[in-house]
Amino acid sequence: GYAKIDNHRSLRNGVPEVIYCEGKSPEHIRGIVPRLAEHSANVLATRASEEVYQVIKEVYPACRYNKSARIVLVNPQPVVKKGSIVVAAAGTSDIPVAEEAAATAEVIGNNVKRIYDVGVAGIHRLLEYCEDLYTANVVVAVAGMEGALASVVGGLVSCPVIAVPTSIGYGTSFGGVAALLSMLNSCASGLSVVNIDNGFGAGYQASLINQL
Amino acid sequence: GYAKIDNHRSLRNGVPEVIYCEGKSPEHIRGIVPRLAEHSANVLATRASEEVYQVIKEVYPACRYNKSARIVLVNPQPVVKKGSIVVAAAGTSDIPVAEEAAATAEVIGNNVKRIYDVGVAGIHRLLEYCEDLYTANVVVAVAGMEGALASVVGGLVSCPVIAVPTSIGYGTSFGGVAALLSMLNSCASGLSVVNIDNGFGAGYQASLINQL
Amino acid sequence: GYAKIDNHRSLRNGVPEVIYCEGKSPEHIRGIVPRLAEHSANVLATRASEEVYQVIKEVYPACRYNKSARIVLVNPQPVVKKGSIVVAAAGTSDIPVAEEAAATAEVIGNNVKRIYDVGVAGIHRLLEYCEDLYTANVVVAVAGMEGALASVVGGLVSCPVIAVPTSIGYGTSFGGVAALLSMLNSCASGLSVVNIDNGFGAGYQASLINQL
Amino acid sequence: GYAKIDNHRSLRNGVPEVIYCEGKSPEHIRGIVPRLAEHSANVLATRASEEVYQVIKEVYPACRYNKSARIVLVNPQPVVKKGSIVVAAAGTSDIPVAEEAAATAEVIGNNVKRIYDVGVAGIHRLLEYCEDLYTANVVVAVAGMEGALASVVGGLVSCPVIAVPTSIGYGTSFGGVAALLSMLNSCASGLSVVNIDNGFGAGYQASLINQL
Amino acid sequence: GYAKIDNHRSLRNGVPEVIYCEGKSPEHIRGIVPRLAEHSANVLATRASEEVYQVIKEVYPACRYNKSARIVLVNPQPVVKKGSIVVAAAGTSDIPVAEEAAATAEVIGNNVKRIYDVGVAGIHRLLEYCEDLYTANVVVAVAGMEGALASVVGGLVSCPVIAVPTSIGYGTSFGGVAALLSMLNSCASGLSVVNIDNGFGAGYQASLINQL
Amino acid sequence: GYAKIDNHRSLRNGVPEVIYCEGKSPEHIRGIVPRLAEHSANVLATRASEEVYQVIKEVYPACRYNKSARIVLVNPQPVVKKGSIVVAAAGTSDIPVAEEAAATAEVIGNNVKRIYDVGVAGIHRLLEYCEDLYTANVVVAVAGMEGALASVVGGLVSCPVIAVPTSIGYGTSFGGVAALLSMLNSCASGLSVVNIDNGFGAGYQASLINQL
Amino acid sequence: GYAKIDNHRSLRNGVPEVIYCEGKSPEHIRGIVPRLAEHSANVLATRASEEVYQVIKEVYPACRYNKSARIVLVNPQPVVKKGSIVVAAAGTSDIPVAEEAAATAEVIGNNVKRIYDVGVAGIHRLLEYCEDLYTANVVVAVAGMEGALASVVGGLVSCPVIAVPTSIGYGTSFGGVAALLSMLNSCASGLSVVNIDNGFGAGYQASLINQL
Amino acid sequence: GYAKIDNHRSLRNGVPEVIYCEGKSPEHIRGIVPRLAEHSANVLATRASEEVYQVIKEVYPACRYNKSARIVLVNPQPVVKKGSIVVAAAGTSDIPVAEEAAATAEVIGNNVKRIYDVGVAGIHRLLEYCEDLYTANVVVAVAGMEGALASVVGGLVSCPVIAVPTSIGYGTSFGGVAALLSMLNSCASGLSVVNIDNGFGAGYQASLINQL
Ligand SMILES: Nc1ncnc2c1ncn2[C@@H]1O[C@H](COP(=O)(O)O)[C@@H](O)[C@H]1O
Ligand SMILES: Nc1ncnc2c1ncn2[C@@H]1O[C@H](COP(=O)(O)O)[C@@H](O)[C@H]1O
Ligand SMILES: Nc1ncnc2c1ncn2[C@@H]1O[C@H](COP(=O)(O)O)[C@@H](O)[C@H]1O
Ligand SMILES: Nc1ncnc2c1ncn2[C@@H]1O[C@H](COP(=O)(O)O)[C@@H](O)[C@H]1O
Ligand SMILES: [Mg+2]
Ligand SMILES: [Mg+2]
Ligand SMILES: [Mg+2]
Ligand SMILES: [Mg+2]
Ligand SMILES: [Mg+2]
Ligand SMILES: [Mg+2]
Ligand SMILES: [Mg+2]
Ligand SMILES: [Mg+2]
Repeated sequence: GYAKIDNHRSLRNGVPEVIYCEGKSPEHIRGIVPRLAEHSANVLATRASEEVYQVIKEVYPACRYNKSARIVLVNPQPVVKKGSIVVAAAGTSDIPVAEEAAATAEVIGNNVKRIYDVGVAGIHRLLEYCEDLYTANVVVAVAGMEGALASVVGGLVSCPVIAVPTSIGYGTSFGGVAALLSMLNSCASGLSVVNIDNGFGAGYQASLINQL
Repeated sequence: GYAKIDNHRSLRNGVPEVIYCEGKSPEHIRGIVPRLAEHSANVLATRASEEVYQVIKEVYPACRYNKSARIVLVNPQPVVKKGSIVVAAAGTSDIPVAEEAAATAEVIGNNVKRIYDVGVAGIHRLLEYCEDLYTANVVVAVAGMEGALASVVGGLVSCPVIAVPTSIGYGTSFGGVAALLSMLNSCASGLSVVNIDNGFGAGYQASLINQL
Repeated sequence: GYAKIDNHRSLRNGVPEVIYCEGKSPEHIRGIVPRLAEHSANVLATRASEEVYQVIKEVYPACRYNKSARIVLVNPQPVVKKGSIVVAAAGTSDIPVAEEAAATAEVIGNNVKRIYDVGVAGIHRLLEYCEDLYTANVVVAVAGMEGALASVVGGLVSCPVIAVPTSIGYGTSFGGVAALLSMLNSCASGLSVVNIDNGFGAGYQASLINQL
Repeated sequence: GYAKIDNHRSLRNGVPEVIYCEGKSPEHIRGIVPRLAEHSANVLATRASEEVYQVIKEVYPACRYNKSARIVLVNPQPVVKKGSIVVAAAGTSDIPVAEEAAATAEVIGNNVKRIYDVGVAGIHRLLEYCEDLYTANVVVAVAGMEGALASVVGGLVSCPVIAVPTSIGYGTSFGGVAALLSMLNSCASGLSVVNIDNGFGAGYQASLINQL
Repeated sequence: GYAKIDNHRSLRNGVPEVIYCEGKSPEHIRGIVPRLAEHSANVLATRASEEVYQVIKEVYPACRYNKSARIVLVNPQPVVKKGSIVVAAAGTSDIPVAEEAAATAEVIGNNVKRIYDVGVAGIHRLLEYCEDLYTANVVVAVAGMEGALASVVGGLVSCPVIAVPTSIGYGTSFGGVAALLSMLNSCASGLSVVNIDNGFGAGYQASLINQL
Repeated sequence: GYAKIDNHRSLRNGVPEVIYCEGKSPEHIRGIVPRLAEHSANVLATRASEEVYQVIKEVYPACRYNKSARIVLVNPQPVVKKGSIVVAAAGTSDIPVAEEAAATAEVIGNNVKRIYDVGVAGIHRLLEYCEDLYTANVVVAVAGMEGALASVVGGLVSCPVIAVPTSIGYGTSFGGVAALLSMLNSCASGLSVVNIDNGFGAGYQASLINQL
Repeated sequence: GYAKIDNHRSLRNGVPEVIYCEGKSPEHIRGIVPRLAEHSANVLATRASEEVYQVIKEVYPACRYNKSARIVLVNPQPVVKKGSIVVAAAGTSDIPVAEEAAATAEVIGNNVKRIYDVGVAGIHRLLEYCEDLYTANVVVAVAGMEGALASVVGGLVSCPVIAVPTSIGYGTSFGGVAALLSMLNSCASGLSVVNIDNGFGAGYQASLINQL
Repeated sequence: GYAKIDNHRSLRNGVPEVIYCEGKSPEHIRGIVPRLAEHSANVLATRASEEVYQVIKEVYPACRYNKSARIVLVNPQPVVKKGSIVVAAAGTSDIPVAEEAAATAEVIGNNVKRIYDVGVAGIHRLLEYCEDLYTANVVVAVAGMEGALASVVGGLVSCPVIAVPTSIGYGTSFGGVAALLSMLNSCASGLSVVNIDNGFGAGYQASLINQL
């Protein structure tokens, strides 16, 4: 029967409350943030601009802004960090998406190692981090343009890789579609893909995997 | 230095040897199968038609054909199965892809529970399996047409979900693109996606996760 | 002969006069509104921003603004409401489109029940409304992102379902295309689809069906 | 609770059992047809080629083949026909899809009037049927190539119109996409759309509407 | 040899000088207009906003702005008008493109009859103009959304029809692609198509045809 | 009134009866050909394979097969040829489409000059035909791959140009889409476009123009 | 081993340091420019607006702005120019991309000949430059809209041609996709293509070729 | 003048005569081969199946079949080989395209080094060939699926790289589009791209570059 559907598992599992701020009005944000933060610690407000941060701070002063991740952490509380997630990013323009993944994973209790600016056009930069990659439980690979980082990382490691295409690029990058297709067609095994720019989704799934 | 790149990790990790048979000539198959099976047990020949099976059996009689998964297992040896992977499929036409995932995962040492014909057009069919879904370490959700199964499963479970779009459908299914987009845009958390019809890739990544 | 084409049926059928305001200049709106409102009650001005509302109010004070539906009702008059239409929406961001459908249907004489925030990532939310869904004459299902709500609703009810994809989402949602394809490929029977964000069209067809 | 989900409503509602034959093997068809026909009259086997018909006749002689609709009616029983559905088709190549819609609707108890070869390149052909169109409860408009029939019909009638794009055409018809887009963007009100070539879906929804 | 290429034919043929203003800076416009107008009468500046008009008027006061066509006619001189071109437009939002066609054709010496707001959702509006359509040498059919006007006009007349898709619409109109595909796939004979919103191109080709 | 729609104008205008044979069964062809040929001379059966020709010859011996145009001319009668149409084709693979245009135009009374194998990769080949191009009333430009022939021709002539993209090419030619886009975006004036491979449509419109 | 990967070859090869400025914040630019210019002469800052130029000039006064190329040359030093590169551009709107190519090539030591406004709609303009084209080591062909310039140039010369599609155009130019497809499908030999608007990439590869 | 267009340069430049055999009938091939081979040595017949080879051998016995390149060399004569071209291919399925490039380049006088099966999923395989890559004048990088090989190679070498996407892959590889986009968006400098599967074009341009 219906009772088998367990509405309360998220509380038991430490799944965070998350607010996706893009396209939400200040009024909406003002209304929703205190309601959630009242009952939960470490509420994540993602895709939060400076303005959104100001709005949140007004109604809930106990909050912290991670500017590069565009995340406001509301009602921040210490968490125990476990295991090891590597977040690798190809270019400096991919860092906001990578930070969204990394910050999400850290807040929900994972050790995160960042490896940035390791695009495949200079493969030696990535290869210097082989030890970090070999010892991770899961790698999040973030890249725009041709998205080749995911395949190269997938070929190096034997843990699961979550690939995040970003909308960085121009012309035929088609807002991230070129990177997405590249990742979906990767000839490396052990790799799966999330939506373009979906750093949160990658960080969240990486956490589920790292904490198994 | 270059020596850091570890070419031998697959042997240590129990990663299987795999031959993707689509588009390969009988000669090619005849040449490659014995060479791999000589040194490895449980070699997987995927996308194998009946004809390919006959070709393999000739050159390597110690093999077993899983017709619905279109996989030939060459030099089959017993493996210890661990943990719990659920493979859920929406329609009966999606079963070959689901079986490719399930058979791959079983061969490399995972307990696999199959839940088939649970498309969302009759949601009660899926809900009957809530217990199985709640106790899995990872779920592989296989669906063509509108691919909504992945989102519904993702909403029910709190383990990682790997979504596999299939090419089943007609008209605007565009050979699996409709299902793929549906899965990439899922509003459920903890979900990532592999290429259309890539049952092998999903089963392989599910195994990496289940065995962490 | 030509006389068979009946130009006057809309007057007899209670079909409303409608102005689609997007892209119309204030001058255009100022010119057209009084002309229509003079001869008709309950003229609908859809896709009306606050500014458009101000423009209309100036030239025709007898009007009412439904902000969330972005509809101005000009020369509002009471209507008798019949039957039962359910408008279901997946996310809070889909509400403007859902309200466009609901407000349109109400103005032309239909009882409308709203069921909002019932996205399939938490299927229990939708299932709580089964009674409402079972007793509707027609359901309008509004969803962006992966658009799976339409399939799940279509599987639950045996009345006609009109699916409305919305442009809500990012990356591979492609401005509503992912949801549209999902709905066109639904494995549920009894479902048809309108253009992305076309709440008016869905509300209008739902009315035609509900009033048969 | 879960018990609210009513698995048996189809029996009460006269919804037919349907087998979609495309891509199903003879063995599969042989297995499924008698099982369904045992408990149900008027089972529909859609997308049935001559070969499929022969397979069905062998295992269930009480069946009838509608060749142009590509439908086998298994265990045919008389039904009472109600109301009025018009099925209009643009070209002679669109007739199989139109017949799938018409035959589906007739079998589940609807009066169906067929108006074929009324493409808009000779608008007078369609206008001769104005009386039939004006008196229908619902019109199914079937067209390939540019799909303009749906808009013209939608402008003539004030009942709901279900538009079915077909895959007829070449070059930029893109297998029905041109007609689909044309129909989704129709400037006529009261029109919704089903998947390319989905005559069954249109006939089925038309029946739900006609029988309200 | 090379001398066969006739660089001077445009002068002999009365082909106008044309400046496409979109994306040109005021400086560029200021530089180019007097240079062209010095040697040629009836120079056309297309896609000209109010601001562009002001810029032109400053440097070349002998000019006239057709606001709805977004055309500035520089150094206007009387022309003899010949033959008969009909420009038909489906909706009021299509008028700027239709006017671009009509104004272009008039300036280079053609009689132009405008038939606007004759979209196929109310086919009787178009049919009232049958006489005008039957007596034209060429018809320009301008429509956005589903673009069905072109097919219906093409079916009525036996002269050449030039179809112009416009970018009017939303969602799956894809900025005019739906109308373009509709027109390219028209089942009416005698019809060809220009780029989306290319009123100038249609008016220019219509003139070439009308003046043969 | 309706009587204004003139159903008989085609007879008066010498418009040919045309049968599009692609996808038509032999039975269908056998039924339709004699019926049309009985009342009309010079009936065109387009897209006719050798087999279709044999079928037609059986039921109507007075017919002639133009193999490269894939057209059967049924009940052939002499026609007076007027004016001048040039049909230019880029590659030898484009000739069937070019011949469809040329043969159509000839049959309905136009002088046609063929200029084949004049692709722009060797521009001198085209320039040798400048005199022919300069004296035409209308040019049909047929090209696959990158379709650049249309632009170059359009720049050379001052008569109307009808561009026909063909499906010749591979990879990113996308079955003629690359050539189509090239032609729609031509920077030459006086050019319009028909559907991919639509030689008939181009030849027919060229005739309408040439005979004005 | 890893040591074989030569991180220092760019210094030896005279490869320039390049900063892609689009989307970079003023802070970022301020930080990165002096760091690079300290060790390298002729640092290229591409896609640089006037504002970016001002920002650079503040932190590094020894710089020069090429406005039409949108390039700031930081720490400019004389270079010896070799060989011969022709940069040909179809329309005046394509000049910024052409200048990006030309300026890049000049800075890294190549003689560059510019041939602008030679679009194929007036082929005689291009043919006047045959001598320049015949004597080049490599030609960069820049064009938007239908991109036919690349094919015509490719047919004239026997040196390598690098084609650059630009985003200039409207409607079905799809931001440069029409030109890109045209170039990829060119029937001329010896031609390859870079991303839409990628003048830098073309100029850089042309330099590698010219300096072989 | 026209005389500047040099029709004879190919003879002087050693450019080969080439016949693209795909889609050509045996008659056509029989006609064209002897005519070309009479005046030219080393005529290339590309995309030649076994059957085409048999046809050619009949009419011109002095020919040699390169089966994996699908090239027949007609009237083979020794050529002096110069410089150094590397052809690198990612997977064994890409070899036919790579061989088309390599064989083309060899026939027209270039030293060619093949590096096959060096896909990036096992990056160490490619890195073993660093010396060969560093000493090439030009590299042709051939890859299907995600096409990442081109970027990695482009990052390693400082000579020009010509990237060839292949149609190898399934699902979202879209017949080579994924690889093509990956290559067009490469973050490596010095890279340009040819059409999907266009090994000939890459080998030909590589030769032009290598022989500068
Ligand atoms: N021609 C058709 N087109 C689309 N859907 C169909 C068609 N025929 C049957 N269906 C649907 O497919 C379901 C049966 O699919 P299956 O179980 O694979 O035979 C039915 O319940 C219908 O909803
Ligand atoms: N509105 C328009 N749409 C399309 N093409 C135009 C338009 N106006 C002018 N043109 C074309 O653009 C050319 C002028 O372009 P430009 O030299 O950039 O001003 C003219 O020769 C026309 O062929
Ligand atoms: N090759 C062709 N390509 C495009 N349309 C054609 C062709 N041949 C005939 N047609 C059109 O198709 C109509 C006949 O179609 P049908 O009635 O199906 O034989 C004719 O009236 C023409 O308008
Ligand atoms: N495999 C190939 N792929 C692409 N283009 C080719 C190929 N082989 C030959 N070509 C080109 O096609 C031309 C010959 O085409 P055709 O005259 O149709 O045989 C040659 O001049 C080459 O430019
Ligand atoms: Mg791996
Ligand atoms: Mg979940
Ligand atoms: Mg239902
Ligand atoms: Mg209507
Ligand atoms: Mg006509
Ligand atoms: Mg011209
Ligand atoms: Mg060349
Ligand atoms: Mg490089």
